[in-house]
Amino acid sequence: MSTLTEPQRTEPAPEFGILYAEIQQFYSHQMQLFDAFDGARWAATFTPDAVFDVPTLERPLRGRAELAASVEHNRSQRERGGEQLRHWIGMLDLSPQPDGTLHTRCYALVHATPRGGPSRVLRVCVMRDVLVRSRGKWRTHHRVVTRDDLD
Amino acid sequence: MSTLTEPQRTEPAPEFGILYAEIQQFYSHQMQLFDAFDGARWAATFTPDAVFDVPTLERPLRGRAELAASVEHNRSQRERGGEQLRHWIGMLDLSPQPDGTLHTRCYALVHATPRGGPSRVLRVCVMRDVLVRSRGKWRTHHRVVTRDDLD
Amino acid sequence: MSTLTEPQRTEPAPEFGILYAEIQQFYSHQMQLFDAFDGARWAATFTPDAVFDVPTLERPLRGRAELAASVEHNRSQRERGGEQLRHWIGMLDLSPQPDGTLHTRCYALVHATPRGGPSRVLRVCVMRDVLVRSRGKWRTHHRVVTRDDLD
Repeated sequence: MSTLTEPQRTEPAPEFGILYAEIQQFYSHQMQLFDAFDGARWAATFTPDAVFDVPTLERPLRGRAELAASVEHNRSQRERGGEQLRHWIGMLDLSPQPDGTLHTRCYALVHATPRGGPSRVLRVCVMRDVLVRSRGKWRTHHRVVTRDDLD
Repeated sequence: MSTLTEPQRTEPAPEFGILYAEIQQFYSHQMQLFDAFDGARWAATFTPDAVFDVPTLERPLRGRAELAASVEHNRSQRERGGEQLRHWIGMLDLSPQPDGTLHTRCYALVHATPRGGPSRVLRVCVMRDVLVRSRGKWRTHHRVVTRDDLD
Repeated sequence: MSTLTEPQRTEPAPEFGILYAEIQQFYSHQMQLFDAFDGARWAATFTPDAVFDVPTLERPLRGRAELAASVEHNRSQRERGGEQLRHWIGMLDLSPQPDGTLHTRCYALVHATPRGGPSRVLRVCVMRDVLVRSRGKWRTHHRVVTRDDLD
């Protein structure tokens, strides 16, 4: 009888295996587009009305045009001799919601490398997303990032 | 005929996909509870008789009360101005055992960040767990961590 | 009708969940063998005619004998007091190809730890592999690694 009272705990759900892989692939693709300064394709991994809230920015970014513009800013910094940044997420914790959205919470590292110089950990962050699915594709609808050094 | 002699190699097993996702989710949740000083919920991700053996401690921790107490120790250090630690695992290698337990071997990084200061890699470790499943939930039964700087 | 025009986007594919887990397990195993100086078993995770192209080497390695020899070189460096290296991949992006091969693109970190000393990020890299499957096992057929500090 106890299996009936906790049905979601008794057997691993195949759907969860698929979902976890999908979301890992989603973030891998999203972060690689960001670091490659592919602003348009990166912005397309967000919903048209997405909000992107990180402490590095004075105010949250809203919508794909602002998102793509932030990538162009990153590109011009890099072209003026800035470091290569690599955004890396891990410890990905998924919370599927009853309304079909997906809440995620993960750690995010940023590594920075100057040309010819040593790499270092630039930032350690916690990232929380609300993802929504549309026509089979997950996109970020809302992102809040906190930085450990500012907490 | 060769496919018959190595049946487990010819087709990927759906169960492995589910298991790998489950265990990644398990560790993501476990590590985030640890870094958030949620001692009771963190200890509940271990079996009641779990053994936790890390070189930072003088002797292995045994049982949930000792595990939870270690988290309270971490919390008080942090409250007295200590750094924010983030435990991050990767390169997760799973070895399901005939007895139903699961042996895991992975790398573990600890990043440390002081308030207002630069982040750094504090420790690089190898973590080996024996996980057991009870009522659909995986829990750590035995953990041994080695540190690269002490090896 | 729109679901018919984009069939691969409307439902998550169970095969992708299995594949993503398999490849994560593959790399976890491969990297741990490399860092443990298990040259023969590490080389066996490559095809017999594999090419391994990293900027640290003067010319690409070709075939398992050269791959295994490079591990022996690493081992002797470590035995003469060298640092413990840990190779860690993430942001794994999979592109299954029509010919059955699998193209992967991921980030690779190398952490270095001297005995008794502090760990650090030694290198930040991008790794691109062509994987092929033979008798149910994936193996690296071609690897190109770029280093952020040399880009």
